Amino acid sequence: ISLRGLGMELRCRCIQTESRQIGRHIGKVEIIPANSHCEETEIIATLKRTGQEVCLDAEAPWVKNVIERMISSRRH
Amino acid sequence: ISLRGLGMELRCRCIQTESRQIGRHIGKVEIIPANSHCEETEIIATLKRTGQEVCLDAEAPWVKNVIERMISSRRH
Repeated sequence: ISLRGLGMELRCRCIQTESRQIGRHIGKVEIIPANSHCEETEIIATLKRTGQEVCLDAEAPWVKNVIERMISSRRH
Repeated sequence: ISLRGLGMELRCRCIQTESRQIGRHIGKVEIIPANSHCEETEIIATLKRTGQEVCLDAEAPWVKNVIERMISSRRH
């Protein structure tokens, strides 16, 4: 089986990151640590209503806050 | 289009969580905040070598640490 078949990409998926604070629209978030195929940590949010995938800036404080809040909250 | 088509599940995906500290084996992590279909925040790790999906305990300190480290590190 290929890495791709495992749901892993063989290149970076993000070209640009969303600067607006879209925390409340996020349905889920995927975090892909830097690896041999992409030297940046990638954070990809899937929006609730549209399913659109949006890359987030791992260095933006609001992104860290959103993720920390997701992990901490038991119920929305 | 359906929610499922948007990559969103209509039920909880996790039955049990991994208690061993498997941080170094994680290729990526998906965080799904509590929502109308599942009242728990779900954290699903995909393992590097096997592609196996493993649910993590959102309340375990090591899980929070692993995720924070992923976001903070630029390169592994």
